[in-house]
Amino acid sequence: MPETQSTPIPPQERIGYAVLGLGELTLEELLPALRSAKYSRIRAFVSDNKDKAVAQALAHGLTERDAYLYEEFEQLEARNDVQAVFIVLPNNQHREYTERAAKMGKHVLCEKPMATTVEDAEAMVSVCHQAGVKLMIAYRCQYTPTHWAARDLIDGGELGPLKLMQSINGQMQDDPSAWRLKLEQAGGGPLPDVGLYCLNTLRFLSGEEPHEVFGYLYKPDGDSRFAEVEEAVSWLMRFPSGLEATCMTSYSTLTTRQLYVLGEKAALEMNPAFAYENLELTVKRERGVEKLSVSQPDQFALELDHFSQCILEDKVPFTPGEEGLQDQRIMAAIYKSAQEGRPIQLEQITKKDAFRGSRPQGH
Amino acid sequence: MPETQSTPIPPQERIGYAVLGLGELTLEELLPALRSAKYSRIRAFVSDNKDKAVAQALAHGLTERDAYLYEEFEQLEARNDVQAVFIVLPNNQHREYTERAAKMGKHVLCEKPMATTVEDAEAMVSVCHQAGVKLMIAYRCQYTPTHWAARDLIDGGELGPLKLMQSINGQMQDDPSAWRLKLEQAGGGPLPDVGLYCLNTLRFLSGEEPHEVFGYLYKPDGDSRFAEVEEAVSWLMRFPSGLEATCMTSYSTLTTRQLYVLGEKAALEMNPAFAYENLELTVKRERGVEKLSVSQPDQFALELDHFSQCILEDKVPFTPGEEGLQDQRIMAAIYKSAQEGRPIQLEQITKKDAFRGSRPQGH
Amino acid sequence: MPETQSTPIPPQERIGYAVLGLGELTLEELLPALRSAKYSRIRAFVSDNKDKAVAQALAHGLTERDAYLYEEFEQLEARNDVQAVFIVLPNNQHREYTERAAKMGKHVLCEKPMATTVEDAEAMVSVCHQAGVKLMIAYRCQYTPTHWAARDLIDGGELGPLKLMQSINGQMQDDPSAWRLKLEQAGGGPLPDVGLYCLNTLRFLSGEEPHEVFGYLYKPDGDSRFAEVEEAVSWLMRFPSGLEATCMTSYSTLTTRQLYVLGEKAALEMNPAFAYENLELTVKRERGVEKLSVSQPDQFALELDHFSQCILEDKVPFTPGEEGLQDQRIMAAIYKSAQEGRPIQLEQITKKDAFRGSRPQGH
Amino acid sequence: MPETQSTPIPPQERIGYAVLGLGELTLEELLPALRSAKYSRIRAFVSDNKDKAVAQALAHGLTERDAYLYEEFEQLEARNDVQAVFIVLPNNQHREYTERAAKMGKHVLCEKPMATTVEDAEAMVSVCHQAGVKLMIAYRCQYTPTHWAARDLIDGGELGPLKLMQSINGQMQDDPSAWRLKLEQAGGGPLPDVGLYCLNTLRFLSGEEPHEVFGYLYKPDGDSRFAEVEEAVSWLMRFPSGLEATCMTSYSTLTTRQLYVLGEKAALEMNPAFAYENLELTVKRERGVEKLSVSQPDQFALELDHFSQCILEDKVPFTPGEEGLQDQRIMAAIYKSAQEGRPIQLEQITKKDAFRGSRPQGH
Repeated sequence: MPETQSTPIPPQERIGYAVLGLGELTLEELLPALRSAKYSRIRAFVSDNKDKAVAQALAHGLTERDAYLYEEFEQLEARNDVQAVFIVLPNNQHREYTERAAKMGKHVLCEKPMATTVEDAEAMVSVCHQAGVKLMIAYRCQYTPTHWAARDLIDGGELGPLKLMQSINGQMQDDPSAWRLKLEQAGGGPLPDVGLYCLNTLRFLSGEEPHEVFGYLYKPDGDSRFAEVEEAVSWLMRFPSGLEATCMTSYSTLTTRQLYVLGEKAALEMNPAFAYENLELTVKRERGVEKLSVSQPDQFALELDHFSQCILEDKVPFTPGEEGLQDQRIMAAIYKSAQEGRPIQLEQITKKDAFRGSRPQGH
Repeated sequence: MPETQSTPIPPQERIGYAVLGLGELTLEELLPALRSAKYSRIRAFVSDNKDKAVAQALAHGLTERDAYLYEEFEQLEARNDVQAVFIVLPNNQHREYTERAAKMGKHVLCEKPMATTVEDAEAMVSVCHQAGVKLMIAYRCQYTPTHWAARDLIDGGELGPLKLMQSINGQMQDDPSAWRLKLEQAGGGPLPDVGLYCLNTLRFLSGEEPHEVFGYLYKPDGDSRFAEVEEAVSWLMRFPSGLEATCMTSYSTLTTRQLYVLGEKAALEMNPAFAYENLELTVKRERGVEKLSVSQPDQFALELDHFSQCILEDKVPFTPGEEGLQDQRIMAAIYKSAQEGRPIQLEQITKKDAFRGSRPQGH
Repeated sequence: MPETQSTPIPPQERIGYAVLGLGELTLEELLPALRSAKYSRIRAFVSDNKDKAVAQALAHGLTERDAYLYEEFEQLEARNDVQAVFIVLPNNQHREYTERAAKMGKHVLCEKPMATTVEDAEAMVSVCHQAGVKLMIAYRCQYTPTHWAARDLIDGGELGPLKLMQSINGQMQDDPSAWRLKLEQAGGGPLPDVGLYCLNTLRFLSGEEPHEVFGYLYKPDGDSRFAEVEEAVSWLMRFPSGLEATCMTSYSTLTTRQLYVLGEKAALEMNPAFAYENLELTVKRERGVEKLSVSQPDQFALELDHFSQCILEDKVPFTPGEEGLQDQRIMAAIYKSAQEGRPIQLEQITKKDAFRGSRPQGH
Repeated sequence: MPETQSTPIPPQERIGYAVLGLGELTLEELLPALRSAKYSRIRAFVSDNKDKAVAQALAHGLTERDAYLYEEFEQLEARNDVQAVFIVLPNNQHREYTERAAKMGKHVLCEKPMATTVEDAEAMVSVCHQAGVKLMIAYRCQYTPTHWAARDLIDGGELGPLKLMQSINGQMQDDPSAWRLKLEQAGGGPLPDVGLYCLNTLRFLSGEEPHEVFGYLYKPDGDSRFAEVEEAVSWLMRFPSGLEATCMTSYSTLTTRQLYVLGEKAALEMNPAFAYENLELTVKRERGVEKLSVSQPDQFALELDHFSQCILEDKVPFTPGEEGLQDQRIMAAIYKSAQEGRPIQLEQITKKDAFRGSRPQGH
């Protein structure tokens, strides 16, 4: 299934972004991928290190004047060529920069997880509404052709009624000094970082919302990496339709990113399910196993361009702040369950895609 | 890894079995597979249908006199060429026929699940001890070269410390009249039937025993198949080492038999993990994914021959009654958890392979 | 696709076979597999070693009197319970024992390759015709459900018009004393032994006959294994429809048994294509790759039972002597091409399945 | 195996290219891929359609003045920021534009096949030598980490001595008006277009040169697409070490791009082997099958950057004109063999990598 490579729109008509944060994700994944964006262009870099920001600006054909320190963030207000910000900062700074951007009338694309607390997530939704700017959570996996092919198979009835879902997202986090291991900055351990993909993608594929969760937290003694946050979480979810899901996430395993959706008639496997590239989608039926060919354009460009199109056409993004808030609520319930040793009820929601906005183009 | 095809020992030196029950499992799987047994031979058939038993006797080169009705079971006492019985009856009859066989001094190979209650399982262990006969639960998956290759990889440290395990065993049960859907006969729904494979095989692979479980039961309204037993169970298990497991089983899905064991350095996937043939074992490492070639002799012949060898050499079977009893206790805890909506504690057991006997030959 | 496990017909109604030759193939593959035969039973063993024959007779529930030396072969004439012979001898003995069996009125199932020369193959066809006995060449791969599923996909138009075919069958032959390395006994090296599978199975799948071949022979200096026969052969074949095929066979490689059939719309891969078990059939289409689930009963039992059914119902076997003769002619042309350094023409045959008899039951 | 994402060198230090030809390959593959180049930048577009060239210039942040017609090509001589040209024109124009570029002192990166005749290829090598400019043939598959991983496995002895190689590259060409179907422009049908990948990649992986070839050409009657060029070619190659290879290429099949290299101890499969992305490399050993994880950066960027580095460091490219010339000679021999119905001898070359230059960085 070849992708139609339409010619990008001219640079000057694209939505201009300021990128906040020059960590590994930005440098290794985002920036290389964004070269293939068609509706978006980077116009400014914001960092706590001016030299690093200047280097990136020059490497992207910009000038020294397009590099800012965080304390200079408000200078962007005057930049009409910067309509939006892309927040790629530690989780606990998402709220502050969302508020500061909204105050300047800039639209906000925010990396997942949305925040470190339900309260922060609620505030972010609220402030953007009040400021009349758009807020989107950067859930890559709701924008790739492969994930949409999976969802379309389910929606089209190929699997029959869904019965069981299962997902694992684990990796090795072996740097004890990483901010992802600090509770205040990260808001948790592997759950909000990688486990969130299991949660969010299963919600996306089924369109359903869990009404009860039960979780186990694993926090080993004597491992300095896990002094503040958990090493692993395993959890169960029940959905109103009778669908059940088991998920696992860990910071102490071989990289594993898989999901499995099992219906009465067929099953669907994605493995890897959450990787930046080389996603694989397999359908299992009684007659055999089919691995589908789906085009795999750069994922970050797809989500960025969706947000740009929503800005250009004044639409609600497919994954607005409300979508991130719902995940935040479920994660809070999983943590509460693990702490109290009992299942936790969530609001019963039976509407499909209850928190999502307008469909990304092409899906 | 080619299997050495040793010449079978002469028929007259082999352990003679009476097969109890001529259901689908016996006819479609057991009897064809047993043709490749090397230490075992079938000497008698016991059924509630004399014609059916006679037909099988003749097809196996035996005579009409080798066919018995259940009420004639005790006539086998006089048959010196029948040293053991293989019980392939509905679950709630396992105890009765174990007791009757033990009374005759016959060794007992009993299909899984061992029983429908913990009490029955305990009684079976006890009666066989007292009678001085051997009792083995027919856990196929503890006897195949593929499962042993998986266990050896784990034991050899190839995966690093184990962290997460996950398994699904689901299939479609669409005959509402099946005895497997009757609570009294089956002792439960998919959990004791197919979910037991997840539980038992994860215990075998890790050698560990869970100390806490939490389960969700799904029983849909208005589906006559699930008037007595559940449609699906999802459960979590925690192990003393910090290892966690999620499992799912269902009677309303495409056939799915998979397991996944994830360590710090590598992971191991079996898919199918519990099928009668064509098992696949894959090791996932950072450098790539390796599918191993392991010889796949007939599984039923392997377990039967192990029991015969234990009788010939007077050894404790690798999966004695105690092994089945432990599964029975864990399943009872899962049901209890689901009914009471809370996690259930189990006895803390830290000894490896706590309930297993002598290793099967060749492993 | 589950196989229907019909109850075998009673032993006394089955076709009785005398097995000639107790080499590795007989002991490791044939005899274990034949336990699942439903229309056939073994009644006698013929060998150059009486002890070996007796041991097998006893292991199969027969008596000492069912073991014969080759010079006693004609004693089988009086055995009414032996209607057929299965010749599993070195290739150059196939003709002699076919002639001796035909003279006794016994039907002949002969291992492939049929013979070591075209002349011998012609004589075998002729003598069986004159004696009114059936002759079948034991081409396993024309009797498995997996190969028939592949053929049915082609016949059903799933691939569109066939364009290219490719096959490799290679393995390591490292015993310099093996009879397979003696030109007189084997009639050639890997070509008649394993390369024949490529040739025969591509002919079966397409139903077409090549009209021209070109081959390269590789015979290394100084390797005592290849003093008489070739190490490897690579050859091209052209078919009247425009279809082309490339094949390779070798005695100096990792075991490799694969074939690939490529059409306008789709392709079909079998890998392994010629193994005794765990055959894999994959269909490749633009939308993705599908691995089919096909039941895999014992292959040797299938071919043996087909021959028994042909005897019971007086039909021409699907792979009669003429089928083997055609392969013999093509192999002779490949050798001639390699020796003369030029392509060799074969008779133009446009009829589909030109040399095959009645379809095996169930296909 | 993660790729180190080094920061690209600043735009003004990179080698500037003029791209000649705005066909599908340029628009769909080259230009999107080149966004990730680190040592190269596009400075000009040359086309027969000024509007198309201007549109691309603007889309790449250049101006109208960076768009040229072919007749304006020599205006590039004055552009010091354009040190090289990338020729992506119909095959029969490669020579002319190479000569014109060399005359201006511009280095030449030329798409494969190098030319439509051996004479043209020889002239191209010669003119670039005389002009003191570098000439490189754009053989993508000699620059990817996946192909180098395959070559390293072979070089490292993992497969043992190489014995057999096999490759297919086929696709559907259904536009009868395509220049690729015109003999004068293309120089042949699928052989120089896609079959060349089989030839070139097998030469690269083994490092060896064939000394004899035999080929079959297929040209159907009555198909207007194949009035001038062949539909398919199958060919055999023999190498001095005893290695043999079979290859097939076609313009009438499902897209198929595979290769297989078989040694004494192990085998290596690439499938797809020649695709622009998602290459798969599998090693087959007796103990099982291993699919390797190899990073997959943009292929076009890799080859372009290699040429830029050779210019910056004054080195001979890994695939200089001589490498393309050798393929041209072998293809001419294959065509000659098919026309004359006999094998064709080639010069005996035993030196490894006989025609290649300096290794690409990182390999």
